[in-house]
Amino acid sequence: MSAPLRLGIAGLGTVGVGVVKIIQQHAELLEMRSGREITITAVSARSKDKDRGVDLSGYDWEDDAVALAKRDDVDVFVELMGGSEGTAKDATEAALAAGKDVVTANKALLALHGQALAEAAEAKGHVIRFEAAVAGGIPVVKALTEGLAGNTITRVMGVMNGTCNYILTRMESAGLPYDEVFAEADALGYLEADPNLDVGGIDAGHKLALLSSIAYGTQVNFDGVELEGIGSITIEDIHQAADMGFRIKLLGVAQMSGRGLEQRMTPCLVPASSPLGQLEGGTNMVLLEGDSVGQIVLRGAGAGEGPTASAVMSDIMDIARGIRVSTFSLPAKALKQVQAARGTAAAPYYLRFELEDKPGALAKVAAVLGDAGISIDRMRQYQHEDASAPVLIVTHKTTRDALDHARKGFADTGVVVGDPVAIRIEEV
Amino acid sequence: MSAPLRLGIAGLGTVGVGVVKIIQQHAELLEMRSGREITITAVSARSKDKDRGVDLSGYDWEDDAVALAKRDDVDVFVELMGGSEGTAKDATEAALAAGKDVVTANKALLALHGQALAEAAEAKGHVIRFEAAVAGGIPVVKALTEGLAGNTITRVMGVMNGTCNYILTRMESAGLPYDEVFAEADALGYLEADPNLDVGGIDAGHKLALLSSIAYGTQVNFDGVELEGIGSITIEDIHQAADMGFRIKLLGVAQMSGRGLEQRMTPCLVPASSPLGQLEGGTNMVLLEGDSVGQIVLRGAGAGEGPTASAVMSDIMDIARGIRVSTFSLPAKALKQVQAARGTAAAPYYLRFELEDKPGALAKVAAVLGDAGISIDRMRQYQHEDASAPVLIVTHKTTRDALDHARKGFADTGVVVGDPVAIRIEEV
Repeated sequence: MSAPLRLGIAGLGTVGVGVVKIIQQHAELLEMRSGREITITAVSARSKDKDRGVDLSGYDWEDDAVALAKRDDVDVFVELMGGSEGTAKDATEAALAAGKDVVTANKALLALHGQALAEAAEAKGHVIRFEAAVAGGIPVVKALTEGLAGNTITRVMGVMNGTCNYILTRMESAGLPYDEVFAEADALGYLEADPNLDVGGIDAGHKLALLSSIAYGTQVNFDGVELEGIGSITIEDIHQAADMGFRIKLLGVAQMSGRGLEQRMTPCLVPASSPLGQLEGGTNMVLLEGDSVGQIVLRGAGAGEGPTASAVMSDIMDIARGIRVSTFSLPAKALKQVQAARGTAAAPYYLRFELEDKPGALAKVAAVLGDAGISIDRMRQYQHEDASAPVLIVTHKTTRDALDHARKGFADTGVVVGDPVAIRIEEV
Repeated sequence: MSAPLRLGIAGLGTVGVGVVKIIQQHAELLEMRSGREITITAVSARSKDKDRGVDLSGYDWEDDAVALAKRDDVDVFVELMGGSEGTAKDATEAALAAGKDVVTANKALLALHGQALAEAAEAKGHVIRFEAAVAGGIPVVKALTEGLAGNTITRVMGVMNGTCNYILTRMESAGLPYDEVFAEADALGYLEADPNLDVGGIDAGHKLALLSSIAYGTQVNFDGVELEGIGSITIEDIHQAADMGFRIKLLGVAQMSGRGLEQRMTPCLVPASSPLGQLEGGTNMVLLEGDSVGQIVLRGAGAGEGPTASAVMSDIMDIARGIRVSTFSLPAKALKQVQAARGTAAAPYYLRFELEDKPGALAKVAAVLGDAGISIDRMRQYQHEDASAPVLIVTHKTTRDALDHARKGFADTGVVVGDPVAIRIEEV
């Protein structure tokens, strides 16, 4: 039996408390599985006196997370504070400098500073593990890093923000507009303090950037993620996409091409009958595609005390078992900087616009699409009482450039009212 | 850079050739990810001269897999021959005795001899890895052993035989009887040489027994798996289950209760709208449930060259990276022998039987169910021209004992023709 593995846990919110509970309730099981006792040396959080529903009296208290991170009697620094800057970053750096392993659930920190932190860890022969940072309880970092280690990864896709998926599926099921469902989600406490992290796609974009790095052996490049939130999705789009057999998801896609690494976190249409299309509420789903394995689909809770704590524990158990894999699969120094690419992969698009009720109006629009080299798969013109009527078009595969060209052309027709909505249809 | 990891590969069928291809085509990627060159020292198979579409000239040839397993210049013995006895077993034992790590895709070998082999491996400080033995390319052994290491596992479920799922979904989509689709599957080469391994549920039962051991810390107990194949499923059952909103799957379920470990690999009804219900063709799906993580769903190809070779490679890469976890998660000596339990969990059932067209017939059946303490959720009596008509009943939750009691009572009514069909409805 090896020496105990001693943890210092910084951050006692939902996830931190969940980790403490697992360690207290499953001590024997964890020790049998890892061959080591898992102990907590010290904890740290903003308020010492808050009742968190767990007994913390057996652990030292540190007001300062940085001091906790440096303690000689801590083997693993467990960072559950969150935030890309400030204390979380300072304490993580301090832990690495002091030669500790780090387990974190902090996607923002790693998305923005992952390369430097991984290099710092590896310089000391230590690891940063971050299973809980991506897709909650789903062991997707492990599946990608280890389970598919024999594959060239061809595509990574995922719905990785439960709040956005909740909002989109709730809009559809209740027939409510975005603003109302947003307010509901806010009242239910589903939104981050800065809701743009959720609905702007930033949180999910952080997660995608981490998976991309593992998948393609590249330095984390969050700036290279094309971000588009769900705020402009209307209930009409949801209903009309459904009419055409699709559902709208905030979907992350990462693909390498000759032109560079394309990372997108944008609303997409997916077939309603596909696993992604059927994903309801706050559940997450990640699809990993490799040259040998084909497509693997992973689904589970993307947030919450139990699932996230489960992911943190899997990292702690890996370290206890002596499992040490480079932070982003390759040694940090071997990760390549690559060009960010946009619009490399052609795709069909869903277009929606208001067309004035004039003879020949549709012909003008069709001519614009034809000029741009875009062919029409399906078209639907809705009945109307006003001077204009909604038109839906599903195109055949086309490029982003062609689409931008067509959108400009639409403005010149004089029969398209306002700005057309264009949503990519992702092949899943 | 560490020394190369030297493989001896026994068995050059589809999977063996797939592994050789990956090692040849992805040499640089594998070395970058693991920090070690992955090399093949020697190979072994039945026929040396067969053209397998890969260049084997760089490797020593061994006619005898046992001799291959013992070679001093082999670090890892990769067993891809199959079969629970004979050469596969002899060579695996020889490799372990010689102090090698073993990677195998052989579910039968481990389901029947896993305990002894794991003890032999651990006595020498080595490991047996078997990701490819369960659910093809899906990294489910890793997800369960490592990804959910912080959880008490509450249930393991899965569709783990693609051939059975192909047959069942094809019967439904083409409206063909079992015998015809069985013949089709045979002609397509989907069936094992002994088809009962597939359609009798044995192959899937082996897989379930391996997952149970990891999940519950118990010695592999294939004899404790309740097995029922798909041979008695009729097209009528499939259609009528669909009418009630269900699909029939050969579903494995493993659950621990106070009475022991229940392992079932039997046809079950699942909601048509659930992820399991929507699983088409040869795809596999495994659901893992833990006290913290909730339910994780994993889906992917359950067989085939690429997916299975991908799983074998993940084990090889783990060993190259120094990842060493006990074969069944706990040290083999710590695995408990537990009682096999049957029928511990109550469930609703689907019942189908032919009822004679006599006044009061249905009342007699209802009385039998009432006497057995079984209440009816839904009932449907089909129109008929014969002297008897099919009746479908979906019961509320009931026990196996109550059901057996009712089935005996049916025989005494004099109005039930033949033996009723009873299929468990699994809550998923």
